[in-house]
Parts: sequence; structure tokens; C-alpha cells
Amino acid sequence: MRIWITGTHGFIGRHLAAWLSRQGHEVAGIGHGAWPQSEAAAWGVRRWLNGEIHSSNLQQLAREGGAPDHVFHLAGGSSVGAAIANPREDFTRTVATTAELLEWMRLEAPKARIIAVSSAAVYGSGHSGHIREDQTHRPFSPYGYHKLMMENLCRSYAASYGLSAVVLRLFSVYGSWLKKQLLWDMCSRLSSNKDELKLGGTGEELRDWTDVRDVVRALELMMDFSFDSGATPIINAGSGNATSVSRIVELVLKCWPTAAGVTFSGESRPGDPYSLVADGSMLQAMGFRWNIPVDTGVHDFVQWYLQYSRSGV
Amino acid sequence: MRIWITGTHGFIGRHLAAWLSRQGHEVAGIGHGAWPQSEAAAWGVRRWLNGEIHSSNLQQLAREGGAPDHVFHLAGGSSVGAAIANPREDFTRTVATTAELLEWMRLEAPKARIIAVSSAAVYGSGHSGHIREDQTHRPFSPYGYHKLMMENLCRSYAASYGLSAVVLRLFSVYGSWLKKQLLWDMCSRLSSNKDELKLGGTGEELRDWTDVRDVVRALELMMDFSFDSGATPIINAGSGNATSVSRIVELVLKCWPTAAGVTFSGESRPGDPYSLVADGSMLQAMGFRWNIPVDTGVHDFVQWYLQYSRSGV
Repeated sequence: MRIWITGTHGFIGRHLAAWLSRQGHEVAGIGHGAWPQSEAAAWGVRRWLNGEIHSSNLQQLAREGGAPDHVFHLAGGSSVGAAIANPREDFTRTVATTAELLEWMRLEAPKARIIAVSSAAVYGSGHSGHIREDQTHRPFSPYGYHKLMMENLCRSYAASYGLSAVVLRLFSVYGSWLKKQLLWDMCSRLSSNKDELKLGGTGEELRDWTDVRDVVRALELMMDFSFDSGATPIINAGSGNATSVSRIVELVLKCWPTAAGVTFSGESRPGDPYSLVADGSMLQAMGFRWNIPVDTGVHDFVQWYLQYSRSGV
Repeated sequence: MRIWITGTHGFIGRHLAAWLSRQGHEVAGIGHGAWPQSEAAAWGVRRWLNGEIHSSNLQQLAREGGAPDHVFHLAGGSSVGAAIANPREDFTRTVATTAELLEWMRLEAPKARIIAVSSAAVYGSGHSGHIREDQTHRPFSPYGYHKLMMENLCRSYAASYGLSAVVLRLFSVYGSWLKKQLLWDMCSRLSSNKDELKLGGTGEELRDWTDVRDVVRALELMMDFSFDSGATPIINAGSGNATSVSRIVELVLKCWPTAAGVTFSGESRPGDPYSLVADGSMLQAMGFRWNIPVDTGVHDFVQWYLQYSRSGV
């Protein structure tokens, strides 16, 4: 299959490209990031266009390598904090790019499927337990609102033009090359020989931690999923396992080569709900199984970090 | 009060400008349309900027006449058919302009209230009876989806930045200077001496017909409405009276100077739900009363049309 991935240069994008290319697909990508040809190729990306998701760039990509069979739409805002600080930029990244992509697909690749990556942030705060896909959406930040709008655009194009669209809502995805958020921050600060770390929040926040190596398989599964035309399935890509931040911290400290202590500020950050854990039964019913438990995943992350930081970057 | 109206040059915009200016407010406007100063002034518009809703233009308007106390946001797509034919343009008009306006207000006029005009199209099809504001939203067209996204942008800015936002969902607004849709089309075709009109649909479609002279009062009422910060009230501006298309046709024919017959194609148009009638109790509870029954309103429209068409335009 000919696959396009928007936002290929990002953390999930590159893992997805590598995985799909290993399955024999031909992968092209578009998005921001200066990416040497050799490095893109090492991630399985045959063609990389460093630029805005704009019809002219999409047309260019199609001219060079043919129109796609599937488009994994990963481009978009990727930080709640950044979205709160600059909502207009987050809107452009998440919503306006999707409008541009869908319109291009409607006109130039009407048979291709879009597999759009959304976020558990659409659920917002106030949840406890496992969140089903149809539960009320009260996003807690512009980030979540924009992801919801992105989903609605997909539904609109599916309903009015029969475009094939699937939305996968990701939860707390982690893994190698994720150079931000808790795991990266902890490792970076432990590396600077701080023997006492102070983290934001209470440590009791519950998240559905999912290893990117599992997540790319969940994304892949959406390619062959059949459903009624116009329906736009919306599916949680969460395992249903709730892990507290303090448990993650414990796991990191266990693998870290030197001893350290961690305390929590006790103050929660804006846009940061107490609990975001999936009801993962819809994905499970499609035959998907989560392979990597969080202790293995965190261990592998720390090993990657240690090796990466020794590489002298 | 200093009032801005986006889309002032449109049908509702000009009526609103005239009404608010008669109440003693200072009205400035922005949007598309070449509007001679004298004509804009006749509609009560002191300052008119013919251009995109873009931060630079908004800034210009503020520099010239001061920042607004209230912004009535009427700019946006205004045709379901046009939105289906060119969804990207409708997205730009309805969603992207709102993103631009809200961001400008957040930074430059954070105390101003936005009163955003949405549409009953967010409810989509499949309704019968009176639709409450909290009923499921399954828009039937990109037009409805984009209005829903516009509402969500308002909610997002209200929730994250405390911007004061109210959304009014309009139903079937009609009145003088509405140069499209059923009343205009009928009168235009009757004027061409067609003694037999064929209209689309079945004639049984139910709509909540509201005279623009009432609607501008409902909009005005939103200026003084107090509510909790961050809440974004969403209110139906519908009377709750269901009138069928064939009843409207009857009313037009009754006032028309010559005799004519009308038939219906029996085929409904895409994006055209069978019934869109408001539960108007929320607006009523705020003390609002609808003054103009549909027979009076249609009569007045026909009189306006006859006079307007005699003016030789």
C-alpha cells in the first residue's frame, strides 16, 4: 500500500513510518522538520516533504510518488501547555491543516482513507474510571477543543462526501525518541546529577500509559477495518490500565543507574485532569492486544535514554 | 456602548446595525462588501472596514475608533448549498475567521463580549417537535459542522481565558433585504410572470420562521445577560412555532398582486432536514417576546419586495 503520514518527523510519526515500512508498505511523509534523506530513509520514509500541509504541497507529493491509499494524519499541536500559551497556533496546526488535508483528499484522493490521530484530551476532566468513546466531551484546554474540532471535520467529510475516515484517540503514549514529558524530563534531570527531583502535580494522577510500539500496531489495524460508509468510527487507543505518575517515577528510579529521590509539588497544572484512562473494549473487540506492560516499556525507555545521551547529542 | 458587528453588510448584520444604532450605540463593522459610506451610515454604521477578519484589520478598526465593548459575530458561511459545493471556503468563513477574531479579542479586547451567531443547522436532521439546546448534534452538512466548530471555539476561549461569550442559534430568519431563499426566490419568479411555480421539496418541511426585526432584539438582549464566567450560554433564537413551507407559499400568494399556482417537486434537497423548530423556552425565560407573527412578516416582506423591485435595481 502507498501510505502517507502527516507529521512523520514527530515521535509517533517516525515509529509508525518504520513499522509500516517493515510491513512492506511504501511510506511518504509531510510536515515540519529538517530531515536528512538518510535519516528519513532509516525510519522507512521514502519521500519526505518538509512543509505546511497545504494543497500545493500535497499535490507535489502526489505528483512525485502517486496519490496515497491511506493517510495517517498525525500532524497537529502536540502540547497542552503550548496550546494554552498560543491557541491560535494550535488551531492552525490541528484544525486548519485538517481542513486543508480533507479538502485535498476529497478532490484528489477520494478513495483514500484518513486515519486521524486524536487525543484523550477531548474528554477533559471530571472523569473517573474507564472512559467510553461516547462519553461527554468537555475538553479542558484549547488543545482538547481543537482535537475535537479536528474529529468533527473528519465526520463532516465522511458524512457529506463519503470519505473514509477513522479517528483513533491516543492516551499517554511514550517510548524512545519522545523528548518531552515526564519520562524525558525525569531522565534529563537525573542526568544532571540532581539527587532530589521536584515534579509538578501530586503523583496520584492516573494515566493510560501506552508504549508507542503497541500504538503503531493499533494504528495499522485501522487500515483494514471495514465499516459503513460515512460512519467515522471513533476508537480509544488505550489499554484500560491506570498507572499513577508516582508509579512511573518508581519504575524509572528502579532502572536508573544512580540513586535519587523525588517529591511532588502537590499543585496540578492547568489543562491536566486527574484521571484519563480508556475504556479500551472497542479496540479489543477488533482483535487488538496490548503487548508491552508499562514496567517493560519504561525500562526500555530508560535504556534508550542512556544510550541516546551517551551518543553525545 | 461601542459595538462591532462582523458581517455587517449581510442581511442580518445591516438590520442589527440599524437597530443598535437607533438604541444609541456606536456601531462599527468589518466584513466583505463594497459599501458606500452614505449607505453604511444609513444603516447606522459609523465605520466600515471592507476586508477579511484578520488581526491586522481588527487592529486597524480599534485604532480608528477604539476597542469594542461587544462584538456581534455574524460573519461566516450563509448557505448550506454553497458549503456543500465548497466546504473549504465555508470552513474559512465560519471557523477560521472565528479563530482569528477570538484570538484578537483575547489579546486586545479581553473584556469585550462576543455574541456569536450560530444556526439551527447544528442540530441536523432526524428531529421532530421542539429542539432543546442540549439535544444531540448531528449536523447534516459541512455548514452545520462548521457552525458547531465555531461554537466550540467560543466555548474554548471562554473556558480557558475567561472571555465572555454567548452563542445564539438562529432558525429561519427572514425579512427585507434577504435576497435569497424561499421568499426572495418566489417573489423573483412571480415577478417574471411565471404563472406556475415549481418549488423543491414537498412543501411539508417545518421551519421556525423568525422575522429579522424580532431577531435583532433577541441579539440585543444578549448584551446585558449575566452568567458565570467561562460558561458560554447557548440559546435558541426560535419562536417554537412550526410553519410549513406550503403555508408560507400560501401567505405569499395571498399578498401577491396577481394570481399564480405553485407545485412541489417532492424531492428534498441535500442538507435540508424535514423539521427544524426550536424549543424557545430558554430565550423566553430571559423575558423575550416574539412580536411579529409569520403572516404579518411575510406580508411585510412582499411589500418590501414590490417596492424594492420597482426601484429599478
